[in-house]
Amino acid sequence: MRTSIATVSIGGSLTEKLTAAARAGFDGIEIFENDLLASPLSPEEIRARCADLGLSIDLYQPMRDIEAVQAEEFERNLRRARHKFQLMNRLGADTVLVCSSVCPHAEDDDALAAWHLRRLADLAQEFGIRVAYEALAWGRHVSTYDHAWRVVEAADHPALGVCLDSFHILARGSDPKGIEDIPGEKIFFLQLADAPLMAMDVLQWSRHYRCFPGQGGFDLAGLLTHVVRAGYTGPLSLEVFNDVFRQAEAAPTAVDARRSLLVLQEATGLAAPPPPVVPTGVAFAELVTPDVDPVSAVLGALGFARTARHRTKPVDLWEQGAARVLVNTGPAARRDGTALAAIGLESPDPEGAARRAEALLAPVLPRRRAPQDAPLEAVSAPDGTELFFCAAGRSRLPDWREDFEDVPHEAPASGIDRVDHLALTQPWHQFDEAALFHRSVLGLAAQESVDVADPYGLHRSRAVTNADGSVRIALSIGPAPNDDGARAQHIALATEDVVTAARRFRQAGGRLLEVPANYYDDLAAQYDLTDGELETYRDLGILYDRDADGAFLHCYTHTVGRVFFELVQRDGGYRGYGARNAPVRLAAQHASRPVR
Amino acid sequence: MRTSIATVSIGGSLTEKLTAAARAGFDGIEIFENDLLASPLSPEEIRARCADLGLSIDLYQPMRDIEAVQAEEFERNLRRARHKFQLMNRLGADTVLVCSSVCPHAEDDDALAAWHLRRLADLAQEFGIRVAYEALAWGRHVSTYDHAWRVVEAADHPALGVCLDSFHILARGSDPKGIEDIPGEKIFFLQLADAPLMAMDVLQWSRHYRCFPGQGGFDLAGLLTHVVRAGYTGPLSLEVFNDVFRQAEAAPTAVDARRSLLVLQEATGLAAPPPPVVPTGVAFAELVTPDVDPVSAVLGALGFARTARHRTKPVDLWEQGAARVLVNTGPAARRDGTALAAIGLESPDPEGAARRAEALLAPVLPRRRAPQDAPLEAVSAPDGTELFFCAAGRSRLPDWREDFEDVPHEAPASGIDRVDHLALTQPWHQFDEAALFHRSVLGLAAQESVDVADPYGLHRSRAVTNADGSVRIALSIGPAPNDDGARAQHIALATEDVVTAARRFRQAGGRLLEVPANYYDDLAAQYDLTDGELETYRDLGILYDRDADGAFLHCYTHTVGRVFFELVQRDGGYRGYGARNAPVRLAAQHASRPVR
Repeated sequence: MRTSIATVSIGGSLTEKLTAAARAGFDGIEIFENDLLASPLSPEEIRARCADLGLSIDLYQPMRDIEAVQAEEFERNLRRARHKFQLMNRLGADTVLVCSSVCPHAEDDDALAAWHLRRLADLAQEFGIRVAYEALAWGRHVSTYDHAWRVVEAADHPALGVCLDSFHILARGSDPKGIEDIPGEKIFFLQLADAPLMAMDVLQWSRHYRCFPGQGGFDLAGLLTHVVRAGYTGPLSLEVFNDVFRQAEAAPTAVDARRSLLVLQEATGLAAPPPPVVPTGVAFAELVTPDVDPVSAVLGALGFARTARHRTKPVDLWEQGAARVLVNTGPAARRDGTALAAIGLESPDPEGAARRAEALLAPVLPRRRAPQDAPLEAVSAPDGTELFFCAAGRSRLPDWREDFEDVPHEAPASGIDRVDHLALTQPWHQFDEAALFHRSVLGLAAQESVDVADPYGLHRSRAVTNADGSVRIALSIGPAPNDDGARAQHIALATEDVVTAARRFRQAGGRLLEVPANYYDDLAAQYDLTDGELETYRDLGILYDRDADGAFLHCYTHTVGRVFFELVQRDGGYRGYGARNAPVRLAAQHASRPVR
Repeated sequence: MRTSIATVSIGGSLTEKLTAAARAGFDGIEIFENDLLASPLSPEEIRARCADLGLSIDLYQPMRDIEAVQAEEFERNLRRARHKFQLMNRLGADTVLVCSSVCPHAEDDDALAAWHLRRLADLAQEFGIRVAYEALAWGRHVSTYDHAWRVVEAADHPALGVCLDSFHILARGSDPKGIEDIPGEKIFFLQLADAPLMAMDVLQWSRHYRCFPGQGGFDLAGLLTHVVRAGYTGPLSLEVFNDVFRQAEAAPTAVDARRSLLVLQEATGLAAPPPPVVPTGVAFAELVTPDVDPVSAVLGALGFARTARHRTKPVDLWEQGAARVLVNTGPAARRDGTALAAIGLESPDPEGAARRAEALLAPVLPRRRAPQDAPLEAVSAPDGTELFFCAAGRSRLPDWREDFEDVPHEAPASGIDRVDHLALTQPWHQFDEAALFHRSVLGLAAQESVDVADPYGLHRSRAVTNADGSVRIALSIGPAPNDDGARAQHIALATEDVVTAARRFRQAGGRLLEVPANYYDDLAAQYDLTDGELETYRDLGILYDRDADGAFLHCYTHTVGRVFFELVQRDGGYRGYGARNAPVRLAAQHASRPVR
């Protein structure tokens, strides 16, 4: 099916929006009236720009409070409509959206509403325009899609049909099954928006918190199935009012938007992109750094050994158990200081994983490589992290490892087994996109979003994982976009014995994050820990959490550039990330920094 | 009455919060548990720090889900309570807050709850501690203050009383009158928070949107009156969970907080600061600029004449009608480019106005002045704008004018009569403070906050005015704190004939903001304007709005530094600011800037 997006869903000037929508692969757009009014382009120029970009203008939305009003007001409305239909002819837009009246003195009279809509449709027909009538969830008298359809049916005019908007239908808790009772050719338009499930005033919810399909809590696939069964063949169009998306760069938001429709179409059986290939482990984490010494010092103190060096690039491989860290001092490292730049994901089918990623609009990375290097499939995540799909589960060494040549080294320590999780602070405007990306492109499952209090504001965090927890990525955002510059990242390393691992790190000269004594007084009040355990944890800065399934012990290294390490011991089936301890950890990290 | 603030209400480390609270003049604090756990100071050190700062520790809040639980869980709770009471003895805090249980398996048994609270109070008494029991609005079984009081009354223990929290009482719509039925000595604590009236899940509302008294929609003065009548003599304590305040600098937030309590006490008759002296007009607007030529060019084109120069400072006075603009090229101008730095407000009692401002914690500005200069009362608004209180309504010239010496000049044009309004973009974290400041310090009335869509995000705007509209200040914030650097400001000038004023400006070489032709097509559809009117408006970039009382015509000059001018014609009793046109204006201003 064709895809479309309302210009209100993305930020920027009208031309920025059109360009972003076209580049993301949309077939058409809905023009929101304010975007047109504010544009220096004439309607004819907008039409030509859209044609150049390959975009149809699928909908225009210039009128409110049309029907069921006083006679003289309706005549004024018709006069306004004539102006707008002339404009639409200049634009080349053939469908106009009319929302149900919210006018306080609109009459509760379906026959009058139908009569007014019929007269409007008569006028529209003169201009070759179709009128799509939509029930706003807060409409004065018409607030449900079935009511809107009854009015349209009563009006009985070929140029009049309904527009269905998933938000208005699902926010009111209407059963979308009844959509199948509407003849498909009378569904003139379909607007799609998801939203987080919130108990709040529906108008505020609609105007500020809508999001793209798959980013909220509505069953859009179910709704779309009913619409398709009804026989609708028009575009799938996103109409998303979202305070964050308005501020964001248009181009990535448009890509996020289109990806959401691809995933929705897949869920509804309307499209069949290559199936997800869920990663089965973390092959490596790659740090870039302009200064290799501080990174080497931390890794060394953690018991990693530098085991190999890339044959053609300034990249070292550090290993301990199945935990592998690449340290890259190539040109990319100069920009932002030490950062986590790439993640190698073990994949049962790297080519398949990359095909899906590409189909879902992830930028595929061209790798400048030496002729003898193994081909590595890689894409870019929304935050710029490079994701490599590495062969796994084969008898031979993974491909990427063949690019590395062993160097003489001491045996690494034992104790650290593998990467437990990777924590990546996302660009502030792209938190919703990041979760949808990791779910849809990588096939990971997203957990609930949690709030975490930092001394300087609330963070939000949301983890994505595979089924057995061998791939865990914690996505988070800070309190406000102005913190974007120093987005923290960390690598959590799994150990069976965090006490021993922390001691070794410290004895080898590593600096553990100091945790205030008050925290341990509280642990003593909360849990049955022995004095010896408490003393050890206090000494090493080990934090403790427990859930129904088990316990979690973890501690942190000092930070190098944007990156620090966490040592993590999961006892039993503990599945979380120690969120209850995050405020203490964040405060300690602030305290250990130079005064701001 | 004593004033107190919960540490959760402001941002920063615990010591930053303590310092800010003490400097703002609070008598005490409530320590929120996470702030203590995350602090490197021991309880004894925190106690000493508070003593040094003159702060009592009025409340500690370490326990949840205490009462009406299973017997063994209650024993665990008592064990935890003993730990916490020991800690409170070290802190020197003698009141503990216990919120009603939210535990899903708490029992609906008031007798059991009372028995548990009685046992807890027994234990507390051993430590010299009082237990204040509070009904959370979302408590499992106890969710209203009268219910909490019934449980406390049944428990009948001298170390057990209630804590009243205005949010929990008013968010549920409880009638606060019943508070008077509680004996004053059994009201152990009073927590105050306001909140905007929102239809949303009460827990989310409480955790993210609370604000300081006077910044929301609750009748806190009414509630406080009942509490005082009941005989409560403890502190007035602010407990405000607010996502924005958490991110803000602690010092100004603490001042804002304390000001809110002063105003609340005044409204309740508990305090009598000097009464407000409402300004009666705008004496002048003062621009600072490092480059006088672009500013002089705009003022000249607007028809202002440079009539006088300050006797001792590099400040020029430009006049037309009763509109006066000072242009200051002194050292302050070097910092931020051209900006609106000060406003002269005509006041019937400048000294009284300054006394009230000082009593309400506005920084009083020390003026370095030459001996012969008139003494000018001035304070600083939250955004740093200097507010001068200038004598008005006397037969002689206002004081400040005497500091200026006439210079030879052509007569100014006529047409511009006075300053219509001043528009100041506020620091992002201080929008709520700004409105409360202008209301309480200056005695202006605040209008409703409105959202305005900019191509790059939503702005919020709220006007404060005096009764006759001779002083109007429009406060606004941009979409996110990262836009703070270039906070736009403008001076709107009142004219009876905007067309003539705009033409003169253009003929004199001024550049008017260009408004897209599409906007005028829409005007033609909306209003009965003649073709001639439309053509004139289009030519000059004049925007149009109408409300029930009259019409509004306005246009804009280009921007110099952060500042631009608006020409404003109000016909009839139009009281707004053309908010419906703001998206078009903002888009045109973006379009007229160099490509970003």
